[in-house]
Amino acid sequence: PANKKLLILPGDGIGPEVMREVRRIIDWMDRRRSVTFDINEGLVGGAALDATGSPCPDETVAAASAADAVLFGSVGGPKWDSLPFDQRPELGILRLRKDLQLFANLRPAVVLAPLVEASALRADLVRGLDIMIVRETTGGIYFGEPRGIHVNEQGKRVGIDTEVYSEDEISRVARVAFDLARKRRNKVTSVEKANVMQSGRLWRAVVGEVGKAEYPDVELEHMYADNCAMQLASRPKQFDVVLGGNLFGDVLSDLAAALTGSLGMLPSATIGAVQADGRRHALYEPIHGSAPDIAGKGIANPCAQILSFAMLLRLSFDMDEDATLIEKSVEKVLAGGLRTADIMAPGMARVGTTVMGEAVLREL
Amino acid sequence: PANKKLLILPGDGIGPEVMREVRRIIDWMDRRRSVTFDINEGLVGGAALDATGSPCPDETVAAASAADAVLFGSVGGPKWDSLPFDQRPELGILRLRKDLQLFANLRPAVVLAPLVEASALRADLVRGLDIMIVRETTGGIYFGEPRGIHVNEQGKRVGIDTEVYSEDEISRVARVAFDLARKRRNKVTSVEKANVMQSGRLWRAVVGEVGKAEYPDVELEHMYADNCAMQLASRPKQFDVVLGGNLFGDVLSDLAAALTGSLGMLPSATIGAVQADGRRHALYEPIHGSAPDIAGKGIANPCAQILSFAMLLRLSFDMDEDATLIEKSVEKVLAGGLRTADIMAPGMARVGTTVMGEAVLREL
Ligand SMILES: CC(C)[C@H](C(=O)O)[C@@H](O)C(=O)O
Ligand SMILES: CC(C)[C@H](C(=O)O)[C@@H](O)C(=O)O
Repeated sequence: PANKKLLILPGDGIGPEVMREVRRIIDWMDRRRSVTFDINEGLVGGAALDATGSPCPDETVAAASAADAVLFGSVGGPKWDSLPFDQRPELGILRLRKDLQLFANLRPAVVLAPLVEASALRADLVRGLDIMIVRETTGGIYFGEPRGIHVNEQGKRVGIDTEVYSEDEISRVARVAFDLARKRRNKVTSVEKANVMQSGRLWRAVVGEVGKAEYPDVELEHMYADNCAMQLASRPKQFDVVLGGNLFGDVLSDLAAALTGSLGMLPSATIGAVQADGRRHALYEPIHGSAPDIAGKGIANPCAQILSFAMLLRLSFDMDEDATLIEKSVEKVLAGGLRTADIMAPGMARVGTTVMGEAVLREL
Repeated sequence: PANKKLLILPGDGIGPEVMREVRRIIDWMDRRRSVTFDINEGLVGGAALDATGSPCPDETVAAASAADAVLFGSVGGPKWDSLPFDQRPELGILRLRKDLQLFANLRPAVVLAPLVEASALRADLVRGLDIMIVRETTGGIYFGEPRGIHVNEQGKRVGIDTEVYSEDEISRVARVAFDLARKRRNKVTSVEKANVMQSGRLWRAVVGEVGKAEYPDVELEHMYADNCAMQLASRPKQFDVVLGGNLFGDVLSDLAAALTGSLGMLPSATIGAVQADGRRHALYEPIHGSAPDIAGKGIANPCAQILSFAMLLRLSFDMDEDATLIEKSVEKVLAGGLRTADIMAPGMARVGTTVMGEAVLREL
């Protein structure tokens, strides 16, 4: 169907330059596959701060809410590092997650065949690695109240955060994980610290209940977060879908990504609930940051942004064929020996952002 | 000086059998080096639960408090897995940390030359690895109030934990990290999520203040916990001392340990403040757990427990020479080709707990 409403938020640092390569793919789809997107571009992060005084202006939230899908770049940079807490560029993404209730972050950690050697882990441990981390993103210690820094009776500063999880918050993200597992290798590893945290105890109980009642066919395993970090770093292939709260999911998904050795290749999706009108808010972004140190140099790897767009086509627009086409093209380009600086290896041809983007286009 | 008061808490699973190998080293020291320990043995964990109904009986806390140092084994096992929250064996260690105010957990992640191949990481990335993780252990989300599971107005369960850090809790553990860095490679990496957590903001501020005022000679770097997990898994050798709160320290120290590939080799110390009488509470334990699956089979690796004892000699009794002697003996045994099952490698000789312990004794 035509007229898919797409909001593009390039953000800061390398965001705009890698996004440019996606725009070229969109143009190609428009011409060659007669898919027309209704595209809006908006401001977020430092770019929005500079232009409007807010890292996530109301117009951006409204545009995101009106869109069928949001393609996000990355935010932040030294320019905005010393701003007060309520102006930090990260609020760009945090507010979008919260206001659109994008509660489930899907973070694949995949090792593509041509990139096995990029991993810090021994090749036999990561060859064929394909993990999906599902992270809760609208609750937990990221948003719980009370929070703040106050001065106590002894005149000492005290910092406080609250981790809160209700059973509904846990069960809805658990369902996302179980559903994904059914389409994969049918196993969910749920991660918490039930041995020391009360929210972890509830997490373990609720995930267990959902699994038993609704997904008896899916293998469910519970694991403490510290153990999960160990297992990821030593035997990562034991995992299929890993489910965690906002904080553990943050750390473990980055760990899993790092294991692949190719952060510049990894996309992510953050999705909300299916609404009454059948729509489902969703935001797609590369897992890498704004990389201010290389911004503007034309050497950033555009693949993660391109693959985020592929994920968007598959999950938000049901365009499985086009998504696969893009993914395969990226793989072919890598198999052909092209590498951006971040994944450069002996014997390969080092290229910049544009050449990489063009190569993917050519494969298409 | 004679009459060093030592409390031994073997605990559960493989705890008692690896502790036996330490006892033989102690006997040897008694005979050959005329060092006499005043040894007490106590109950903790499941063993204490079975005998007294509590995973950490008052007598154990009192004995630990009266001792100059505590050598701890490990706690827990399937037998006690379904007990109520306030009876879980983990309380054994949690209560000792809290009641003795053992606020700084020192967790070396070291790759010994003979064990480079045990790591899941490529040899070049871990050869010579020597990181010290300093984890806060009496505060943060492990103990903060309010905490619990309640039912809200909608009849839904809600789980709550509170992360609380005061500036004094942060500065005292920061000093431990800075002091250690001075004796090492002079660098501290302080880890938090100051971009989303208020306690993390305070953590970053206070560590920065202590560093600037008292340790201007030590390099200080701040890093988000998710990034730290990534960096550990990809370029671990960039770190010297890593400082984190209770929760991040838990996950990151286990991650760092896993990178070495030899959990059965790693000791740890948890220390308190120097008291008015000059004493300093300290507890030493291997970082591995009670490993119920191999308990009683005589195949557990006693080295982590033995090296924990060496750490005890060095830190609590100032017996640097003896500590080094034990450490060197362990290394020689490994260099000689003996391996327990957990670190077994092609071409090596597989031995059990007792043979490994005897080999270390012989080297002594
Ligand atoms: C930018 C930051 C707030 C964010 C987080 O901690 O969630 C980032 O690490 C991520 O994972 O998207
Ligand atoms: C046993 C458990 C409570 C403990 C913790 O989480 O602190 C363990 O993981 C550790 O690191 O000693």
